[in-house]
Amino acid sequence: MVRTVYVNGEYLPESEGKISIFDRGFLFADGVYEVTAVVKGRLVDHDSHMQRLARSLQELRMGWPCTRAELDAMHLELIRRNRLEEGIIYMQVTRGAADRSFNFPKEAVKPTLVAFTQTMNLVNNPNAVTGIKVITTPDLRWARRDIKTVMLLAPSLGKQEAYEKGCQEAWMVENGRVTEGTSSNAYIVKGGKVVTRGLSNEILAGCTRRALLRLASEYGIEIEERAFTPEEAYGADEAFLTSASQFVMPIVEVDGHRIGGGQPGPVVRKLREIYLEEAGK
Amino acid sequence: MVRTVYVNGEYLPESEGKISIFDRGFLFADGVYEVTAVVKGRLVDHDSHMQRLARSLQELRMGWPCTRAELDAMHLELIRRNRLEEGIIYMQVTRGAADRSFNFPKEAVKPTLVAFTQTMNLVNNPNAVTGIKVITTPDLRWARRDIKTVMLLAPSLGKQEAYEKGCQEAWMVENGRVTEGTSSNAYIVKGGKVVTRGLSNEILAGCTRRALLRLASEYGIEIEERAFTPEEAYGADEAFLTSASQFVMPIVEVDGHRIGGGQPGPVVRKLREIYLEEAGK
Repeated sequence: MVRTVYVNGEYLPESEGKISIFDRGFLFADGVYEVTAVVKGRLVDHDSHMQRLARSLQELRMGWPCTRAELDAMHLELIRRNRLEEGIIYMQVTRGAADRSFNFPKEAVKPTLVAFTQTMNLVNNPNAVTGIKVITTPDLRWARRDIKTVMLLAPSLGKQEAYEKGCQEAWMVENGRVTEGTSSNAYIVKGGKVVTRGLSNEILAGCTRRALLRLASEYGIEIEERAFTPEEAYGADEAFLTSASQFVMPIVEVDGHRIGGGQPGPVVRKLREIYLEEAGK
Repeated sequence: MVRTVYVNGEYLPESEGKISIFDRGFLFADGVYEVTAVVKGRLVDHDSHMQRLARSLQELRMGWPCTRAELDAMHLELIRRNRLEEGIIYMQVTRGAADRSFNFPKEAVKPTLVAFTQTMNLVNNPNAVTGIKVITTPDLRWARRDIKTVMLLAPSLGKQEAYEKGCQEAWMVENGRVTEGTSSNAYIVKGGKVVTRGLSNEILAGCTRRALLRLASEYGIEIEERAFTPEEAYGADEAFLTSASQFVMPIVEVDGHRIGGGQPGPVVRKLREIYLEEAGK
């Protein structure tokens, strides 16, 4: 089955999904994106993603490519055309195509909208059973990580570094403290309490993070929002990450230090369970 | 006359210049670029740009899309097909198109190469007669500015801010000192001496900067390579910038402070003259 992708109002076979070389997403990384999980053919935390998209667009004074309702319909149509049961929908908006200039285009340009699906094993991801390994790496990113832009070269280099060291994620470190993962938020558990960095321009406000913190609170699991050091992580009882495509993912090794005896611990297993229950609804 | 652009081996009308939505330049800003000036139909400082391209590719472990000889031939062919007398050639290399993953593609992917021309008035740019105005703005960029990547959203926002304030460029400031312009290197002149920031990961090693420093040295103009503050700039005798498309451009106002009585001064006029003489050869 050939994947159907979406480009500026058209549904196309993926090989025909193309944009102009003058697109500002390509020339200036002048674009934002969202990734929404799909479970049992249904969108997970979709409203949260669309709220964050609205904020990203506003922060960059970028226009909407279509209405929110059209965006929702496009997500559902991609699920339908690709018979997507489980996986993700990636969508990206850019400031559009215009002759190259660092300035925003002087004449009104229609924003570019592209989207595509990826089939993935999210609920029964085998990594969730064994837990994954992470490294730490310096955080090289720009100052506005609260906006979900395609300025992703540093995270990509970090993820590749992790992969080459036999690990699955890199936690980025700035001023001696973990900011977040290259495509996830970072957590440790110590004495039954979950520790994760508070929101600021230094990290992305994860939609899965938001949902998890709400659920944790409902289940009486204590959350402390503060930055932690790699050394604290080495000595933690448990560690995990959250992301739209990994949900709640146990971490059993940080920079070669085994966490919780190398097995996913009770807090992360509970959190994954309650998140999955919610996602599957 | 319809502009002819280059995309992965093909010369196409600009409206047909397209790349895959899966291109890593579009999804991850995983690409590098160069801009070479053309004067009298000939490339300016081209070898210097190609040396820097080689370094950018190496730093990111990105492959060459073709040989250096083919790249040179492509530049000349774009000049010929577009009958370009004066302007620039923009070229961009990305890690290529692959299904979206933060990791580098696991299977070998051919790098993407695109290029296009822009006709510009470079030698008789009227701004060089009047001088331009700049603002300062916080430097929000990532930590590897020595690599000429398309991670350009912060510079684009800076340039737009300058434009909205009636200025032509923004000097970015970090830890109280000017790093560089959004698309240029920054200089002040005090007591006949030219001051410009030394090379490091914090700025791009400009090809025009390199040529200018060599020429200045040949003409006995003293250069001091060190960071300077906005306040030093306000009180400077002269100020200017260099870039591939602006050559040596006088600055007559910084954050509303008039420099050198609001007229391009003798040092910058001399430097522009000797650079133009070299470029026109």
